[in-house]
Amino acid sequence: MKLTILGCYSATPRTDTNPTAQVLEINNHLFLIDCGEGTQVELRRNKIKFARIKHIFISHLHGDHFFGLVGLISTFRLLTRETELHIYGPKGLKDIITLQMKLAESWTNYPLFFHELTSKNSELIFEDDKVEVHTIPLDHRIYTNGFLFKEKPGERKLDMNAVLNADIDVAYYRKLKQGFDVENKDGIIISNHEVTNEPIKPKSYAFCSDTAYSEAIIPIIKGVDLLYHESTFLEKHEKLAAPTKHSTAKQAASIAKQAGVGTLLLGHYSTRYDNLKDFKLEAETIFEPIELARDGKVITF
Amino acid sequence: MKLTILGCYSATPRTDTNPTAQVLEINNHLFLIDCGEGTQVELRRNKIKFARIKHIFISHLHGDHFFGLVGLISTFRLLTRETELHIYGPKGLKDIITLQMKLAESWTNYPLFFHELTSKNSELIFEDDKVEVHTIPLDHRIYTNGFLFKEKPGERKLDMNAVLNADIDVAYYRKLKQGFDVENKDGIIISNHEVTNEPIKPKSYAFCSDTAYSEAIIPIIKGVDLLYHESTFLEKHEKLAAPTKHSTAKQAASIAKQAGVGTLLLGHYSTRYDNLKDFKLEAETIFEPIELARDGKVITF
Repeated sequence: MKLTILGCYSATPRTDTNPTAQVLEINNHLFLIDCGEGTQVELRRNKIKFARIKHIFISHLHGDHFFGLVGLISTFRLLTRETELHIYGPKGLKDIITLQMKLAESWTNYPLFFHELTSKNSELIFEDDKVEVHTIPLDHRIYTNGFLFKEKPGERKLDMNAVLNADIDVAYYRKLKQGFDVENKDGIIISNHEVTNEPIKPKSYAFCSDTAYSEAIIPIIKGVDLLYHESTFLEKHEKLAAPTKHSTAKQAASIAKQAGVGTLLLGHYSTRYDNLKDFKLEAETIFEPIELARDGKVITF
Repeated sequence: MKLTILGCYSATPRTDTNPTAQVLEINNHLFLIDCGEGTQVELRRNKIKFARIKHIFISHLHGDHFFGLVGLISTFRLLTRETELHIYGPKGLKDIITLQMKLAESWTNYPLFFHELTSKNSELIFEDDKVEVHTIPLDHRIYTNGFLFKEKPGERKLDMNAVLNADIDVAYYRKLKQGFDVENKDGIIISNHEVTNEPIKPKSYAFCSDTAYSEAIIPIIKGVDLLYHESTFLEKHEKLAAPTKHSTAKQAASIAKQAGVGTLLLGHYSTRYDNLKDFKLEAETIFEPIELARDGKVITF
């Protein structure tokens, strides 16, 4: 998996900071996660091919997470896109986009599908043979979802020495990879575990922005390799975090620790802070390793 | 008057080109004209104070002319703006903005007024004691207006030598500036023209984007000091201009010539062209002087 941070700041775009947008490359998919104003310019700056984006996930309808979407949809049209585009986001998003297309008399010439979300429980919203995407209900001022991106478990790996020693016909290799016990050439049942190894552990990424501190998400994000959890504030501004339903770096770290994740990625910083290192230092008192999101940063895991 | 070009390209924002937005400084007003995606970042880049913008004029509801508006309105709220904001634009704009505010549960804490336009005739849409703004109905694929910004004529200038020679009481100076004939100290009527000079010629600016070649606008923009007229295409692509209801550089120059304007400013270039100088060369075969809009350019006149 490869995660590219297009924007990681809260509130308003500035000359040197972009609002939330990320691109996740996972098993040949290019998933766009949130789409603040200016996202299409950041896609170009990071040399990401527009045509490869077929699925866009919008967490909630605050502007810093979706004001770039209508422009991106228009640009796809101007680029004479023909491939389908699927958009997953809160109910209302379709109305916002279609009202603007209607008034501009500019309908897309490619198939555009809205998958509007209303459930307050985690649900499976995308699945193919290799990847699943689930919602992560978050606790914010308006209806908000994070997203859990999971590879499905791959096939078991053949231990070729053991397979040959057990004298198994090549026709059974496929069954072995799928985890079945098989007969060898002498008609003896060979236990799968004797001749195969565990598949490569599937990777997972959880995106949680924006949210107050919420232990309810822990069972959903348990053990993910990478957790992006918003940290709009430092602990010294915890009094601002509660009423705005945002989190501090320390709270994000506490969630990461309780969920036993691999790495915690912080972001959605308030622009009041000049020095992002303070977020890392604060979070590291609770959990390690910590990564700081920065516009343009690429994380491969 | 001082005109700052924040963006002057058509279609989609890119890393080095911005869609349409301009700021006109006229008699202490700061008028924002169109507001493509990224306009708030360009305002910051050009160090224009957000609080000074009280009037925004939107020509039409194609995205490259207004997709930055909702974000700017939100940013004003985050900056705890209290002063009124007036938005002039096609009917439908209010619905687009209020739907997004409603779904975000984020209402402005400053008074926000929409002045929706529907007339196909030129109309006076703003007036104070020094400035007038009129619409310029344009010929585009959807309902579109350009805008004519005019200073009102100032007061006549006293010719102080003549005034003193005519022995006029100082109490009458105000009347003289307003153009009235007055009595002198001996009770003789002094003709205004003998003791005053013409006021400074009021300046005017016409913004015309987007539009097909349309001679109907000529009477409205007659003699303006500066005309911005779109030139999306060069003459060699005239066949693209007609169906998309855009203009070529040559057509823009023809309008400028017929309207007898001071200077023609070209812009709204298609991003297919690398060399903007071709626009100037083409237009100069018909009219001079020509200025080329460029992002960040400032024109004082």
